[in-house]
Amino acid sequence: MTKSFQPRFLQKIRQNRPLVHNITNIVAANFSANGLLALGASPIMAAAIEEMEDMPKLSSALVINIGTLIGKEIDAMVLAGKTANHLGIPVLLDPVGVGATSFRRQTVETLLNEIQFTAIRGNAGELATIAGVDWQAKGVDAGEGSHNMVEIAKQVAKRYQTLIAISGEADVVSDGLRTVLVKNGSPMFPQITASGCLLSAVCGAFLAVAEKDQYFNSLIEACTAYAVSGEIAAQSLKSTEYGQFAVNLLNELGALTTEAITQYAKVEYV
Amino acid sequence: MTKSFQPRFLQKIRQNRPLVHNITNIVAANFSANGLLALGASPIMAAAIEEMEDMPKLSSALVINIGTLIGKEIDAMVLAGKTANHLGIPVLLDPVGVGATSFRRQTVETLLNEIQFTAIRGNAGELATIAGVDWQAKGVDAGEGSHNMVEIAKQVAKRYQTLIAISGEADVVSDGLRTVLVKNGSPMFPQITASGCLLSAVCGAFLAVAEKDQYFNSLIEACTAYAVSGEIAAQSLKSTEYGQFAVNLLNELGALTTEAITQYAKVEYV
Amino acid sequence: MTKSFQPRFLQKIRQNRPLVHNITNIVAANFSANGLLALGASPIMAAAIEEMEDMPKLSSALVINIGTLIGKEIDAMVLAGKTANHLGIPVLLDPVGVGATSFRRQTVETLLNEIQFTAIRGNAGELATIAGVDWQAKGVDAGEGSHNMVEIAKQVAKRYQTLIAISGEADVVSDGLRTVLVKNGSPMFPQITASGCLLSAVCGAFLAVAEKDQYFNSLIEACTAYAVSGEIAAQSLKSTEYGQFAVNLLNELGALTTEAITQYAKVEYV
Repeated sequence: MTKSFQPRFLQKIRQNRPLVHNITNIVAANFSANGLLALGASPIMAAAIEEMEDMPKLSSALVINIGTLIGKEIDAMVLAGKTANHLGIPVLLDPVGVGATSFRRQTVETLLNEIQFTAIRGNAGELATIAGVDWQAKGVDAGEGSHNMVEIAKQVAKRYQTLIAISGEADVVSDGLRTVLVKNGSPMFPQITASGCLLSAVCGAFLAVAEKDQYFNSLIEACTAYAVSGEIAAQSLKSTEYGQFAVNLLNELGALTTEAITQYAKVEYV
Repeated sequence: MTKSFQPRFLQKIRQNRPLVHNITNIVAANFSANGLLALGASPIMAAAIEEMEDMPKLSSALVINIGTLIGKEIDAMVLAGKTANHLGIPVLLDPVGVGATSFRRQTVETLLNEIQFTAIRGNAGELATIAGVDWQAKGVDAGEGSHNMVEIAKQVAKRYQTLIAISGEADVVSDGLRTVLVKNGSPMFPQITASGCLLSAVCGAFLAVAEKDQYFNSLIEACTAYAVSGEIAAQSLKSTEYGQFAVNLLNELGALTTEAITQYAKVEYV
Repeated sequence: MTKSFQPRFLQKIRQNRPLVHNITNIVAANFSANGLLALGASPIMAAAIEEMEDMPKLSSALVINIGTLIGKEIDAMVLAGKTANHLGIPVLLDPVGVGATSFRRQTVETLLNEIQFTAIRGNAGELATIAGVDWQAKGVDAGEGSHNMVEIAKQVAKRYQTLIAISGEADVVSDGLRTVLVKNGSPMFPQITASGCLLSAVCGAFLAVAEKDQYFNSLIEACTAYAVSGEIAAQSLKSTEYGQFAVNLLNELGALTTEAITQYAKVEYV
């Protein structure tokens, strides 16, 4: 059933300009920072282990993305994550391409063991891998599979005591008990790189302005706000204007209003 | 003489969505990934040595780019390249700025010694450096010189038993015996960063869907497809609209058809 | 008082295409390279310590940016900076987010101790941190504070015998004795990531084509040229079209003329 959806966190982002600390990859760094700025948040990208205890003290959320690990990022991620846990600020994991290599699976296992994540956001293949479900993953793309995403979301949410957001034609957001489908978006999203990474950063910004008991709703609003921005960004475009879609998406994250989210939102409780 | 050119690999990229593994630099990572996605391929950027044996098993091509080496990338490149050689998947080298420093020359020497490359793609200055010809290289830009690019292409192709693509006003593609000029393109290409890096990634996607005896033709098609996309991308622009050219190039890689390649192609066998 | 401002360095950049060596971060690398190319300069991004003695020999300026330190960049920066000092080419520091963590403060202290900088360019919070003035810095954004930026610019310029450019609603450029306000720009600048980093790179290009006794004027022209480009870039945009602003900014850096700088410049000596 579609419930009337009442956005309340976008406005808080615009008012508070929360600092969102990203430990992210070389593909997504620029796009994620620009997306956070357009939305109204304040991004900082930092991965030096020497500053991973200081940075969470300034930040309102931490987003950990394993897209292009090179050297000591994993140690930095663990230290920043533990510090954020200690300080009580929300921490989100984006397990980019976790199904691709055993190194990525081990990395995610380490992170899940060491850090209590507030949320995990990935695509179907990534969450299936974390769930231990066989999945036809291909690199960092979503892959195809027949498993029920709602079940996978619930299962991983319960196992790791965390919120889950699975991106796809419809996004699935779950806290293990309650599950929601966000049926907004555009087929152009998977055609631009780092669109998932940017959504993770956007989720970080929404978590940053929420109280603990509002995290679930703020995550739903994050997915909806982002999907609606993409929907509007694609409206004037031919289906192959991928370059312009990335530009428009930043424009629409900037122009997005609470009213537009309300008007476009197709949020269903399942 | 201009031969009628029959493109046959673009369609295969769109059908197969080959995974192209890129070990690349911090300047080109986003643009290369977006260009591959727009074209219809599936990019993965990964440089952790711990996953360099796993990644080629998933991939249909490997593209090695030395643009911004920081730490252990060279070891990762060697391991990934050897693994790709062992598995028989095509490997392409982009020797970015090889003429600029002795470190880059040594790096390329190491890579050429350790890996059997299917193709090397660079600009005139870079290939002249590899050929050992004196060249007025300046940083990562092409520089100027009077040497015959066709001769350099043939010579390097023979010495390293590899295909060569030299980018310039006309691209030179050679297997050492046969040489082709691709007289498409736009003067705006060298005015946007990573346009060469993206072409290397595009070449990787075309090699990925070709049989071994088709590699030469697939490389010609890659250079032609990319140059034609740029030609169309520039058509509506003032000569200084560099920002928009980068956006349009992604749009046109997405919109490109086999018919457009055939219509625009100026491919000459020399 | 507003003095008639006579730009003389933009033309030299277009003629000489100076090579500007950037040791920069993963967020700014692509945008800075594209901005330098659009302006008419030739960028090279390189951070491997093994090439930090070779690279300044080819370059006309060095720009050091501490935005996302990961591993051995600090050693590379020191080596490149000392080599550039020895060779007499200008060196600029962008102390990104120096107020955010003690690691960044120590890094900047090390760099200031080891390298004689020709110029430091940052935002108000960053320069206040270097001046030792308490400032409400937040991450890499400017923060707010009541201190007099002109005084801070003069003080830091004198202490480190360097030129200072502080970006803000009006830019402050000082050599410790003479101080200038550049009252051009656009409120959209702080809304796109790496707009400060690109300005630092642009300052590098202007210093690259100036004689030592012209450095102060070339830095004023750099800030003015960049601010005017942004002013023109924003003219046709809604205030939230951040994605398009970044694209337009590159277009306008390409289209910029000496005449446009003269026409738009609001340069005041204070």
